[in-house]
Amino acid sequence: MGKIKIDAFSLLKRIRDQKPVVHHLTNWVTIYDCANIVKVMGASPVMAHAKEEVAEMAMIASALVLNIGTLTVDFVEAMKIAARSANKKGIPVVLDACGCGATQLRNKKSLELLDEVRIDIIKGNSSEVAKISGENVKTKGVDSVEVEKDLIELASKLARKQKCAVVITGKEDIVAGAEKVYLVKNGHSMMGNIVGTGCMAASVIGTFAAVEKDLPLAAASGLVCFNIAGECAIKSSYGPGIFKERLFDCLFNLDKKMIDEMQKVEACK
Amino acid sequence: MGKIKIDAFSLLKRIRDQKPVVHHLTNWVTIYDCANIVKVMGASPVMAHAKEEVAEMAMIASALVLNIGTLTVDFVEAMKIAARSANKKGIPVVLDACGCGATQLRNKKSLELLDEVRIDIIKGNSSEVAKISGENVKTKGVDSVEVEKDLIELASKLARKQKCAVVITGKEDIVAGAEKVYLVKNGHSMMGNIVGTGCMAASVIGTFAAVEKDLPLAAASGLVCFNIAGECAIKSSYGPGIFKERLFDCLFNLDKKMIDEMQKVEACK
Amino acid sequence: MGKIKIDAFSLLKRIRDQKPVVHHLTNWVTIYDCANIVKVMGASPVMAHAKEEVAEMAMIASALVLNIGTLTVDFVEAMKIAARSANKKGIPVVLDACGCGATQLRNKKSLELLDEVRIDIIKGNSSEVAKISGENVKTKGVDSVEVEKDLIELASKLARKQKCAVVITGKEDIVAGAEKVYLVKNGHSMMGNIVGTGCMAASVIGTFAAVEKDLPLAAASGLVCFNIAGECAIKSSYGPGIFKERLFDCLFNLDKKMIDEMQKVEACK
Repeated sequence: MGKIKIDAFSLLKRIRDQKPVVHHLTNWVTIYDCANIVKVMGASPVMAHAKEEVAEMAMIASALVLNIGTLTVDFVEAMKIAARSANKKGIPVVLDACGCGATQLRNKKSLELLDEVRIDIIKGNSSEVAKISGENVKTKGVDSVEVEKDLIELASKLARKQKCAVVITGKEDIVAGAEKVYLVKNGHSMMGNIVGTGCMAASVIGTFAAVEKDLPLAAASGLVCFNIAGECAIKSSYGPGIFKERLFDCLFNLDKKMIDEMQKVEACK
Repeated sequence: MGKIKIDAFSLLKRIRDQKPVVHHLTNWVTIYDCANIVKVMGASPVMAHAKEEVAEMAMIASALVLNIGTLTVDFVEAMKIAARSANKKGIPVVLDACGCGATQLRNKKSLELLDEVRIDIIKGNSSEVAKISGENVKTKGVDSVEVEKDLIELASKLARKQKCAVVITGKEDIVAGAEKVYLVKNGHSMMGNIVGTGCMAASVIGTFAAVEKDLPLAAASGLVCFNIAGECAIKSSYGPGIFKERLFDCLFNLDKKMIDEMQKVEACK
Repeated sequence: MGKIKIDAFSLLKRIRDQKPVVHHLTNWVTIYDCANIVKVMGASPVMAHAKEEVAEMAMIASALVLNIGTLTVDFVEAMKIAARSANKKGIPVVLDACGCGATQLRNKKSLELLDEVRIDIIKGNSSEVAKISGENVKTKGVDSVEVEKDLIELASKLARKQKCAVVITGKEDIVAGAEKVYLVKNGHSMMGNIVGTGCMAASVIGTFAAVEKDLPLAAASGLVCFNIAGECAIKSSYGPGIFKERLFDCLFNLDKKMIDEMQKVEACK
């Protein structure tokens, strides 16, 4: 892995200019956060889950974000309808495998989604992605170099198998495509102390994917911006409550200089 | 249109004194915001959507707010049951036509609600209200005087047709009744940068309608207070995250002097 | 009642060390707040309500929190499945009787839950708990000494009848077990000016119960910590918006010295 610079700001600017619609079928815990993080980047979030309208809503969107965090059987059926419509239109579909591994239902429904519709970006933490990949990986975090290597390998294999981008979030975020892997080393540990950052990361990735066809680059760029916002937010925070509001402020105010100077990205082919 | 002063504070004071119950069937994205904005004004929000209890809940309320932002077919059926109960009791029913125009389901269900129950206040942005009205209006915002005139005409026609009050939110908010039109020119553009202000506006209107029978006056008074809170909130904000929390703070702390001095209202018969 | 000191910090420390999973089936208004308050204490919230997975999810949890604030008939059925699983595993089940007394559905379903599954902690405000107890208590608040006595008696009787702990929240929180009653006199009136503090209190109680088998002590300790956080939060707040974020900050940062010095607890056998 070698240090590189990516032009994440140009993608953020594209979002602010084009204001893409990002359709979500997401979980009920963080639905506001997912909508608001999309909004503060300048894009247009829409949350709709009625089976009668999801296909039509996906058709007016530029990306679709699915999150199984509070799934039900019916809700996943609506996800499939929306995803088929998104597939038909050719817009990117992000799957946040939230809680995969915790119950049989989540495992089964994650795999069903991967089988029955085209998922363009799979996103989860190490244990969620390991579960989806079917690999028996011991996930002890990304602290040791060995495990980091393992997770990169895991993401890359799944990316090749599913012909999609794979994002493993953690202390360092891994973004794997068919040919390239990015490591995003920005962020702050306070992001792990609040509910919602994982789900918001998926929404950020979906929003970047709405304006950039190179999906690993889109995902890495989104994570760079989101994580730099986290680093900015911590400066004027005393705890997780104010921190979260400052996270919205910082992403809203993010500029080219900050992104260029603060980004810590590594890549390898 | 000529400048006028409305006594919005006396209505806010009535809310703080009477603490009316405001029943919502609203969307899942901003449900917390809708509840909290009602609460910080001193009223008592209640969110209930089970078809077995909505009629009873509406009976203990002083206003009912319906919002189709994340509608399903069943959810709209519960709305109808609640609205029939509200109609029977004679309390005002607000319909936030959130996302109307985006899908056939939203168009159909909005019209069904208008047909099958009595809606006392229709609220939406220009394209949502245009869709409901059946008019083929090109909505380019309210910047040009021509379009402003068109939107006032649109709101007035719909108000006469439906025998209700019509609110079109935007850079300037239009409130039309059978005989009178108010223009509320308060507010700040940051309110458009966060998710939830539109939905909260409907809840504010519903809460003011709970204590004042002159519904266009109630709606205009609510918007004056809400928008002035937005103007106050921006003063100590660096972005949309802190701004939103300050919006709650400012509405909570709003006093007669601020409302009287800061309000920018125009009216015509 | 006499003043006592409880070692609430040692329980909070246990939460921070053990990071227990706290499973919720809660209401849609405050679901984020419930998750986040658990998270900022260092525990691991999980929200899951699909009938196919709730039993399995409860099995990996250390406590279960049920809140009927936006109940439906199906949702309560999922609660029962989760609770039976929790009962089988032997983890504590908290019932927040949110809105009980407002509709027949809430009354009926609250009693059904008490009949069909084992509830270890019943939590509500005075009118909610009075309704559940079947007592015809006039609830005028806890200001007068007479009423305070009545509420303590009410909680104690229900605790003995149901063989569980009973929490009545209010200006002063009452925690009654079979043998002991705690009065927690911490807190700030601003906590009553926002939506969510009642629901969060139940989540805090559930999280403390996840690490301490003496349930009245767990509940009292949780309320001490939560209410002291409220007292800290008010110091740097101008209104309910910022206050709520500071509440998360303060609970996150709470230390032994603050808890020991600020707590105001009374107890009697």
